[in-house]
Amino acid sequence: MIREGDIVVLYDRNKKRSLFCRVRCQQLNLYCGRINLGDIVGKEFGDRVFTHTGYEFFILKPTIEDIIMKGIRRTTQVIYPKDAALIIIKSGIKPGDRVIEVGCGSGSFTIILSNFLGNSGKIYTYEKREDIFRIARKNIEMAGCLANIEMKNKEIREEFDEKDVDFVMLDLPVPWELLPAVSISLKSGCRCASLLPTVNQTEEFVFALEKAGYVDIEVIECLVRRMLVRKGKTRPEQLMPSHTGYLIFATKVSR
Amino acid sequence: MIREGDIVVLYDRNKKRSLFCRVRCQQLNLYCGRINLGDIVGKEFGDRVFTHTGYEFFILKPTIEDIIMKGIRRTTQVIYPKDAALIIIKSGIKPGDRVIEVGCGSGSFTIILSNFLGNSGKIYTYEKREDIFRIARKNIEMAGCLANIEMKNKEIREEFDEKDVDFVMLDLPVPWELLPAVSISLKSGCRCASLLPTVNQTEEFVFALEKAGYVDIEVIECLVRRMLVRKGKTRPEQLMPSHTGYLIFATKVSR
Amino acid sequence: MIREGDIVVLYDRNKKRSLFCRVRCQQLNLYCGRINLGDIVGKEFGDRVFTHTGYEFFILKPTIEDIIMKGIRRTTQVIYPKDAALIIIKSGIKPGDRVIEVGCGSGSFTIILSNFLGNSGKIYTYEKREDIFRIARKNIEMAGCLANIEMKNKEIREEFDEKDVDFVMLDLPVPWELLPAVSISLKSGCRCASLLPTVNQTEEFVFALEKAGYVDIEVIECLVRRMLVRKGKTRPEQLMPSHTGYLIFATKVSR
Amino acid sequence: MIREGDIVVLYDRNKKRSLFCRVRCQQLNLYCGRINLGDIVGKEFGDRVFTHTGYEFFILKPTIEDIIMKGIRRTTQVIYPKDAALIIIKSGIKPGDRVIEVGCGSGSFTIILSNFLGNSGKIYTYEKREDIFRIARKNIEMAGCLANIEMKNKEIREEFDEKDVDFVMLDLPVPWELLPAVSISLKSGCRCASLLPTVNQTEEFVFALEKAGYVDIEVIECLVRRMLVRKGKTRPEQLMPSHTGYLIFATKVSR
Repeated sequence: MIREGDIVVLYDRNKKRSLFCRVRCQQLNLYCGRINLGDIVGKEFGDRVFTHTGYEFFILKPTIEDIIMKGIRRTTQVIYPKDAALIIIKSGIKPGDRVIEVGCGSGSFTIILSNFLGNSGKIYTYEKREDIFRIARKNIEMAGCLANIEMKNKEIREEFDEKDVDFVMLDLPVPWELLPAVSISLKSGCRCASLLPTVNQTEEFVFALEKAGYVDIEVIECLVRRMLVRKGKTRPEQLMPSHTGYLIFATKVSR
Repeated sequence: MIREGDIVVLYDRNKKRSLFCRVRCQQLNLYCGRINLGDIVGKEFGDRVFTHTGYEFFILKPTIEDIIMKGIRRTTQVIYPKDAALIIIKSGIKPGDRVIEVGCGSGSFTIILSNFLGNSGKIYTYEKREDIFRIARKNIEMAGCLANIEMKNKEIREEFDEKDVDFVMLDLPVPWELLPAVSISLKSGCRCASLLPTVNQTEEFVFALEKAGYVDIEVIECLVRRMLVRKGKTRPEQLMPSHTGYLIFATKVSR
Repeated sequence: MIREGDIVVLYDRNKKRSLFCRVRCQQLNLYCGRINLGDIVGKEFGDRVFTHTGYEFFILKPTIEDIIMKGIRRTTQVIYPKDAALIIIKSGIKPGDRVIEVGCGSGSFTIILSNFLGNSGKIYTYEKREDIFRIARKNIEMAGCLANIEMKNKEIREEFDEKDVDFVMLDLPVPWELLPAVSISLKSGCRCASLLPTVNQTEEFVFALEKAGYVDIEVIECLVRRMLVRKGKTRPEQLMPSHTGYLIFATKVSR
Repeated sequence: MIREGDIVVLYDRNKKRSLFCRVRCQQLNLYCGRINLGDIVGKEFGDRVFTHTGYEFFILKPTIEDIIMKGIRRTTQVIYPKDAALIIIKSGIKPGDRVIEVGCGSGSFTIILSNFLGNSGKIYTYEKREDIFRIARKNIEMAGCLANIEMKNKEIREEFDEKDVDFVMLDLPVPWELLPAVSISLKSGCRCASLLPTVNQTEEFVFALEKAGYVDIEVIECLVRRMLVRKGKTRPEQLMPSHTGYLIFATKVSR
């Protein structure tokens, strides 16, 4: 049963569009009439809600993708779900692991990590800018993920506060500058990753990783294309995001 | 500390190749000499091991991708990590959820689900063919994932044994045939997914989903291209997998 | 030397943008001042021209791509240069050949064919809609290509007027309906082609080609991605056209 | 009518494979029997020819793509048809133009230029290595293209022998070294192009072009994916070439 304060997705079947919102005593003015969000309380996911003109919306449970792409307030470029998914699968982590993230940004990847690592896991996330930090905190709170996340509004100088972590995500433009700190905190045999928009940053990071003795260095990019399936008119979408960034992975070994 | 029976990846830095193996008292004959796998016992991930000719390998902790792509014995086409990652992120599931998988196949996606849902989660996986079922069981056992997986060597006729599940993965060529069963077992507001190689199957499944009243139906395909980063010679790989399948997602709503 | 009536491209080096225009006694109001187009007369390609505020433009010779993408007035979806280029290379035609095009549309591919086949070649292009036909005629005239093009404002019923042609391009939504006519007019051992937006049309055309005994049937799609090369910031463009259509080619054989 | 000495493609409809060969008095031993190539003399394109076991082949007219991909003897990496097609369309050239090519290689792009520029056009192609030059000459002769090609087995030092050309293709690993020579020989307002495998070469060339005052610099890459269209089983091919090179274009302007 949906309660006040829950987050939901309202899906419009006609327009194939969806809205992300929090259930509370409030009126929402839409392109097709007004919805009283309070009416959603007591309903179940999958139920309908109607505007004052009788326009139908389905109440859906937000996926992680909905939260990242529609729910959070963005300050910096978010890590797209397609890239986040690959990082999770290639990171070598499992529920219960402890990980460091540098560059909390809007908190989107932090939320994904939180979801994946579960209650027994732990995420330590660093963000040096205070304004960004504050918004990330609100986003993470909205997603209900604060329990296993420790947020730190500070810059890394020499070392991270944590040692023996299972994964380090470096989401900042100059990940190579933090490599000495990563090498201290990351368990041997475990991986670190970064997402970088340019070839030049990618090269600089890879060369730094090689110099620092990291192995199994991998660089990939991921493209996702939507298919529009309609009777007799099935075709790929006509415009798509063609670049977010290069994903870099590497494994630390013992000296 | 690595113990007998553990699974490890042996990484060859020169050839940028890796081997997947289980640590036990056994000799491995490689292109560069013999390795005594028993020598690995007592070492840590990230350490080295040498062949009798002194050739160096790094001992790495297998990622989920290593297990799927190198560790398991394949009977059917496996779901690639790139696709598995997207299914996880778009499924709406979180650790602790209960899910059904139809078409266990080699057990690759079952292992990924197990890893993601954690100890508090549960996967019910159906496989009708006995020969495939037996190999899947061994693969899942090798990956150490049996705890939260219930394997069923039977065909679905009318209904699944489980009700009120949070996600259903249909990894079989005719997912539309099981849609009535899915509609009984899947919670409203939750999603089901399939991975289909052809446009025609994709169309048939999408039309069946529409007819059954499912909403937020999405079809995507995912391409991953590797970049080879080398001083002055950085370029994309020259050959890549250009199709595994179309990923289809849909959300069940209340009647 | 550029003369009145010539077509030119004005290239803005700062904004990396270009304008397509015809040289005549006229003022052009731009985002950066007024240009007197008459000033271009007597200059050479590669020279500069300035707005009344001193803003610099380079006068470039239009490529076929400039003409198609910026010069012509569009009525229907044009065949993109990337697709047109592949059709030319896979059509088996050479300067001097005679070809039929059905669906003149905006005349973009007609212009490309004209350019490629040269003075000794001949294009017969059919367009049934009069409004579209008239605009195509103006576009082709603007591009200076009328000499080797014969334009026909009529619908094909049974046969084309021409026989023994070296290539037939079917740029209409139902190319299979014209296949009997193509089989009469196309030389044996020569090819026909079509560009179709949906998978379903592609299937219908391929099955019709197979039934009619055509061989070497090929279906491809072409994606072009731009790279932005800048010191230390080289990366692919972030948004790109991800679908224009499927290109279908087939070769007629003797009965 | 096909005569002795002609080049043809033999197409096997069952295997969807084709062979490239020259018609002469010779027996060809194939996977499905022997073909007497002399039997083809007097037939028409589109006709059939049979092996001694009755296996059927269609005699097709080679397209430019067949010649490049199957007909020529390769010494260096050839420019693929997909890339060659884009170069032609973006080069700004038309039949009758005069162009320079540096790096004749196997002669594949030279053949395409020859075909496109026609009898009134002219290609000057430079190749410094004698062994490569000799094979290119044979390939070009085989394709019947010698009439409008002038081949030069020499290295460029300061200048090209030709001036006022309409296009220069630089198919060598260090195109920036020849940029001063290009700037002397290329007409203002006209373009030069290169195809380079790595990002680093691409950057070096682009920066050299910018420094030399070239404008409208464009870098693109082109991907072509095949669709397999079969009743109820239509899908993209599963493996594809994912990188040949970056195509670079730039326009020379007046000083």
